[in-house]
Amino acid sequence: MAEHKSALDAGRDVVARLNPPLEGALAEKYDALVPGFAESLVEWAYGRHYARPNLDLKTRQLCTISALTVLGGQTAPQLKVNIKHTLAAGATREEIIEAIWQMAVYGGLPAAINGLNAAQELFDELDATTA
Amino acid sequence: MAEHKSALDAGRDVVARLNPPLEGALAEKYDALVPGFAESLVEWAYGRHYARPNLDLKTRQLCTISALTVLGGQTAPQLKVNIKHTLAAGATREEIIEAIWQMAVYGGLPAAINGLNAAQELFDELDATTA
Amino acid sequence: MAEHKSALDAGRDVVARLNPPLEGALAEKYDALVPGFAESLVEWAYGRHYARPNLDLKTRQLCTISALTVLGGQTAPQLKVNIKHTLAAGATREEIIEAIWQMAVYGGLPAAINGLNAAQELFDELDATTA
Amino acid sequence: MAEHKSALDAGRDVVARLNPPLEGALAEKYDALVPGFAESLVEWAYGRHYARPNLDLKTRQLCTISALTVLGGQTAPQLKVNIKHTLAAGATREEIIEAIWQMAVYGGLPAAINGLNAAQELFDELDATTA
Amino acid sequence: MAEHKSALDAGRDVVARLNPPLEGALAEKYDALVPGFAESLVEWAYGRHYARPNLDLKTRQLCTISALTVLGGQTAPQLKVNIKHTLAAGATREEIIEAIWQMAVYGGLPAAINGLNAAQELFDELDATTA
Amino acid sequence: MAEHKSALDAGRDVVARLNPPLEGALAEKYDALVPGFAESLVEWAYGRHYARPNLDLKTRQLCTISALTVLGGQTAPQLKVNIKHTLAAGATREEIIEAIWQMAVYGGLPAAINGLNAAQELFDELDATTA
Repeated sequence: MAEHKSALDAGRDVVARLNPPLEGALAEKYDALVPGFAESLVEWAYGRHYARPNLDLKTRQLCTISALTVLGGQTAPQLKVNIKHTLAAGATREEIIEAIWQMAVYGGLPAAINGLNAAQELFDELDATTA
Repeated sequence: MAEHKSALDAGRDVVARLNPPLEGALAEKYDALVPGFAESLVEWAYGRHYARPNLDLKTRQLCTISALTVLGGQTAPQLKVNIKHTLAAGATREEIIEAIWQMAVYGGLPAAINGLNAAQELFDELDATTA
Repeated sequence: MAEHKSALDAGRDVVARLNPPLEGALAEKYDALVPGFAESLVEWAYGRHYARPNLDLKTRQLCTISALTVLGGQTAPQLKVNIKHTLAAGATREEIIEAIWQMAVYGGLPAAINGLNAAQELFDELDATTA
Repeated sequence: MAEHKSALDAGRDVVARLNPPLEGALAEKYDALVPGFAESLVEWAYGRHYARPNLDLKTRQLCTISALTVLGGQTAPQLKVNIKHTLAAGATREEIIEAIWQMAVYGGLPAAINGLNAAQELFDELDATTA
Repeated sequence: MAEHKSALDAGRDVVARLNPPLEGALAEKYDALVPGFAESLVEWAYGRHYARPNLDLKTRQLCTISALTVLGGQTAPQLKVNIKHTLAAGATREEIIEAIWQMAVYGGLPAAINGLNAAQELFDELDATTA
Repeated sequence: MAEHKSALDAGRDVVARLNPPLEGALAEKYDALVPGFAESLVEWAYGRHYARPNLDLKTRQLCTISALTVLGGQTAPQLKVNIKHTLAAGATREEIIEAIWQMAVYGGLPAAINGLNAAQELFDELDATTA
């Protein structure tokens, strides 16, 4: 039983490092529509995956960036959130761009270009915020 | 002009690290069907992408593993080749498995399970060879 | 011969239940670009599929909702139209949300979240209309 | 804490109805490769999704059949497992075939035909077993 | 009424040019599982699409080859059938290979390579038959 | 060495026929983010693919239109650019529409409808410009 509590708790520990307000924001946006949504997502994605040993968080995030890129432009909102998380995990913008552009080989040029566009938008938003 | 020669040459340098017989094997299998195939692939994938600075080769390979996983079971042959390359780039089997399994979050369980199956097959082949 | 007339006619009967103005709206929007578009769509989608026996219309519509969800955010406009049709076929909003959210297992979280967003938008539009 | 225990337990209750040996079979096949795999899958897929209220299990399974069909032939193994589960949930073979064939409208003919092929294979296997 | 009869008949005329035994073979393989399958497919795919004016049959077939290639290895059986149809429509093997390989740009290298593999298999089968 | 210079140069020759300002526009938009982007894209897509012999440029472009259509609405920006290129390669609007609509058979109705929407938007933009 303890271990299942720790799946959710371990997920929350990862979220605390990457994006502390995430669970609250998800709950506010989706829990009325899908009861249990935010907790379920944190438990599964962060507790059952990102919290696992054997691969560091920064590399996990770069893998996610690449995967969202080949999944296509439909995942642009998730790609932007995850680029933020990847920066929080210690990656540079240059590393992120490489993880996107390389996907032209596997997912084709349109997917890679849509990924670059999402990154550019996010970088512009970050620069506007800090300017 | 030199720089374009170096796109192919830089690609060949990466291939020399990851899988020296690759270009020859691709040429033998595909160049009669598609004249220029092997050279074109090495130039584009390895010279124009893997040879780029700003992201280390091992992380690039783990990103590729994740992307091929979410692209689905149709890429199993390419996934197995790239798992070999990822081992050659210095990743452990555990790191590779993590880069695959995490994809259940983004590409769904069937894609992740098909990816694990491809990895298991490749590991079994490697173990059979070295046994 | 009679049975082919009935493919189109059977399709029109289904459309009459789900969304009477559909064929006219499609004809107005697409028939100049693609002569025969609306009739062809009604015949194929509704006459050759939804009008078939052995599965009730409400379940057919919920299956469509799930499929459009895993096909990704690119199908948001079609998803919204089909959520309307699914309500017209007798499903509740709660059933529709479940048919979407369950797809996180098969198509990944981004596809499921994009599907929830489309449903929320449609529900908001319906509520605004009836308010 | 209790509620997270129940996500796994609720998942196990669903699995008990659909396919009792599933968790053990998954553990045997995958837990050495991915520690915690079987438990994690049962908790997420069955506890966090199929066990939810508001949509009956048979309809949930038919939705899954449709989704796996449009995801393409790469999901044939998962489609066959889920067709078994759908029969266990009370659907007829005819209902399952309809949930597959209708997908020609949304995922295209190749995906629908590959889905029909998977169903035919599974039906043949079941008939051979019971013959 | 006549026009709907002619959708099916127009489809049969195209099939007569590309692959005369197709409808019978489809009926034998699928009509027991999906009543009306073969007729429905001929009417929709060949009557409502390939029989349309404004684009010649050979170009239509080459477009189909490219589309099946980017849809991924899951469509290999359909790709092989359509390569045969494309040869029947007057294309050369070289043209077909170009329509596949170019897809590396849009669908990525794995999809293009899987497409080349399907073409090579089909060419080998044809050569074995005529040898 | 000369032949690799000519991959880029051959690509530039094709671009000169289809869309002369393309390389400059891509460089301005992406080269700061991805050093070498524009040159790399011209070399790979146009030099290593469109410049190849054995398939005429107009047919290549129509194949691309079909492929981008089945890849889904996420590729709408690329589809619109390529529709322009296809017109420049000598195709009529009617031919382009046929290459899109036929894809309903292979990629499903939502993908085909999204493709028609992209074409209609581009045609409207062109008509507004010339009006």
